[in-house]
Amino acid sequence: MKNNKRFSVHYSLLAKSLKEAKEKAWNICIEQTIEFPYALVKQEYIKHTVVGKIENLKIIKTGKFLADISYDEKTTGFEFTQFLNVLFGNSSLKPGIRVEKIILSTDLQKLFKGPRFGAAGLRKLTGAYNRPLICSALKPMGLSSNALAVLAYKFALGGVDIIKDDHGLANQSWAPFKERVVKCAAAVKKANKETISNTLYAPNITSDFKNILSRARFAKKAGAGALVLSPGLSGFDIVRELANDNTIKLPLLLHPAFLGGFTSSPDSGISHAALYGQLARLAGADISIFPNFGGRFSFSKAECKSITEGCKIKMGTIKNNLPGPGGGMSLDTIKTMKQFYGNNVIFLIGGGLFADGTDITSSVKKFKRLVI
Amino acid sequence: MKNNKRFSVHYSLLAKSLKEAKEKAWNICIEQTIEFPYALVKQEYIKHTVVGKIENLKIIKTGKFLADISYDEKTTGFEFTQFLNVLFGNSSLKPGIRVEKIILSTDLQKLFKGPRFGAAGLRKLTGAYNRPLICSALKPMGLSSNALAVLAYKFALGGVDIIKDDHGLANQSWAPFKERVVKCAAAVKKANKETISNTLYAPNITSDFKNILSRARFAKKAGAGALVLSPGLSGFDIVRELANDNTIKLPLLLHPAFLGGFTSSPDSGISHAALYGQLARLAGADISIFPNFGGRFSFSKAECKSITEGCKIKMGTIKNNLPGPGGGMSLDTIKTMKQFYGNNVIFLIGGGLFADGTDITSSVKKFKRLVI
Repeated sequence: MKNNKRFSVHYSLLAKSLKEAKEKAWNICIEQTIEFPYALVKQEYIKHTVVGKIENLKIIKTGKFLADISYDEKTTGFEFTQFLNVLFGNSSLKPGIRVEKIILSTDLQKLFKGPRFGAAGLRKLTGAYNRPLICSALKPMGLSSNALAVLAYKFALGGVDIIKDDHGLANQSWAPFKERVVKCAAAVKKANKETISNTLYAPNITSDFKNILSRARFAKKAGAGALVLSPGLSGFDIVRELANDNTIKLPLLLHPAFLGGFTSSPDSGISHAALYGQLARLAGADISIFPNFGGRFSFSKAECKSITEGCKIKMGTIKNNLPGPGGGMSLDTIKTMKQFYGNNVIFLIGGGLFADGTDITSSVKKFKRLVI
Repeated sequence: MKNNKRFSVHYSLLAKSLKEAKEKAWNICIEQTIEFPYALVKQEYIKHTVVGKIENLKIIKTGKFLADISYDEKTTGFEFTQFLNVLFGNSSLKPGIRVEKIILSTDLQKLFKGPRFGAAGLRKLTGAYNRPLICSALKPMGLSSNALAVLAYKFALGGVDIIKDDHGLANQSWAPFKERVVKCAAAVKKANKETISNTLYAPNITSDFKNILSRARFAKKAGAGALVLSPGLSGFDIVRELANDNTIKLPLLLHPAFLGGFTSSPDSGISHAALYGQLARLAGADISIFPNFGGRFSFSKAECKSITEGCKIKMGTIKNNLPGPGGGMSLDTIKTMKQFYGNNVIFLIGGGLFADGTDITSSVKKFKRLVI
């Protein structure tokens, strides 16, 4: 029986027989912990505590099995990076193994904490209840800070809930980070005053190891209402760091850039629900952005639905967050999307909003009417 | 004609026809930069400078094409994270697109710098010339710092070139980071004195965002001769940061944990040569560890060979580094491996060395004899 000092990972395994699946599961128990010939281990506590344990193994369909493997939480050293390593470090390099689901121990829930705001907190911040939230993006890369600020102003006048930097806006000469953030935050503030609404501006702070924390702090000071981060580029732990930083206290929008490798095969990598749902939440994402089905990306309806499950699946004290489908979405599809996702979602329309017409404020208003 | 302010990426593309391949390549030019409907872009410089350019497109085989796409280096904002984003951020989320090769602009070569030591520097540090270097790993997880130090001492007496922490040794209670590093570094120093050899001890510093730099500094002070890092867990940019830190100046061994998603399909992700070769080097890896063929992982001979190419392919001023095949290797296979890899390599044997017999120092000596 699993004790509460252990966490579990459900892996799906390709295997021709139950015997092969057992071997594969046992190899995961070793690979993710001692990486050492079990027969040569002399210490009993290493054999019984450090090595992973197969808690359950069952067939899903011909050729595919589900293994529930538990690990002592001490193997993580109570650090997020090493938690990820035990979860899937070396096994990510082996074929036919996929992380499907994560079940945390109580102590790890308390340690990692998850999103500061979560879905409920975001609604409180934006005043958007009983409807999907809406978000748009400042783009294209190459525009000046002034031009982006004009755009931000127009978006905010339309009453969009969140305006995010396109995730490719970093510190390019066309719109350097500090200049852009100051101007866009001021523009959104001005519009908020005029409309008595509460649009949040979320600059992209993804950057070099050395600069990322100071960019977050600068953004906070400049009046940003949220932050955009791509953990595939920056690593996951800076997300956790920012979510827990009591001097920053801003909602975090996680962008999936450079994470695609994990979800490119149904038989390896990490499931959409575990990666964009559970792991993003664990790290501290208040919004988990992912490519919507039917756009220019390849996620299926079922995969998108599974992400929404990962955003709300019970994880002890870890708050639910909001799934953020985006990518190739347009105003034409919002009604269908609302039927599909319901209200617990934030819709991201970027380019599609510009394609709607020349008056961006009216397009945003139309966007908002469609979700109410 | 490509100017020297642009860098190029070779992508292989799945497409049914040249026409489809062209469309796919053009979509990458947009996706990796402006992420915006091209027809709606008003500024000429954005169209001509910011958007990527197809420099070349050719068929490789039926259904597969190679696109050479160039980007203005300004799109990177001269930051490594944003460079990775332009390289493959969003396109990693689309099927049938694979990064095959990276060709840097001169300024980016100068900016990122690459490994501090490289292959030649490592030979100078270890005094190992005209032969493969050899490396072993402290394990299993669960051993005390004292037990690991005893092991490190025995390894060093055998004359191994580098002793690395197993990449799963973090800051667990069984062997806390500081205690382990002090004891193992002292043990290796003692053995080095006795044998007049120059074994380097490489502790694993992969850890939380907040701790990773201070662990590197602590390790340096305690007498570590190199450092182990898993960029899949920590992000790539901390590697660049450490490689360029003039107060640390230690060779970096990069471990592939949690990077497997990128190389699990021949049609998507990042090629072995570009990921474990070029990108690891660019970030600053002096040694690029990867799973060897024939062991318990799934890399093929051709994939392993391609990594060795990526470790030495001309990248301007960026030094060559050493490929480090490991994982399920044993003394029995070293002769064959030497024939396959030649001398410009570092062999990693972990568990396999323990399996050889009870006297670990003799096993290391045997390992060394086999590579000379």
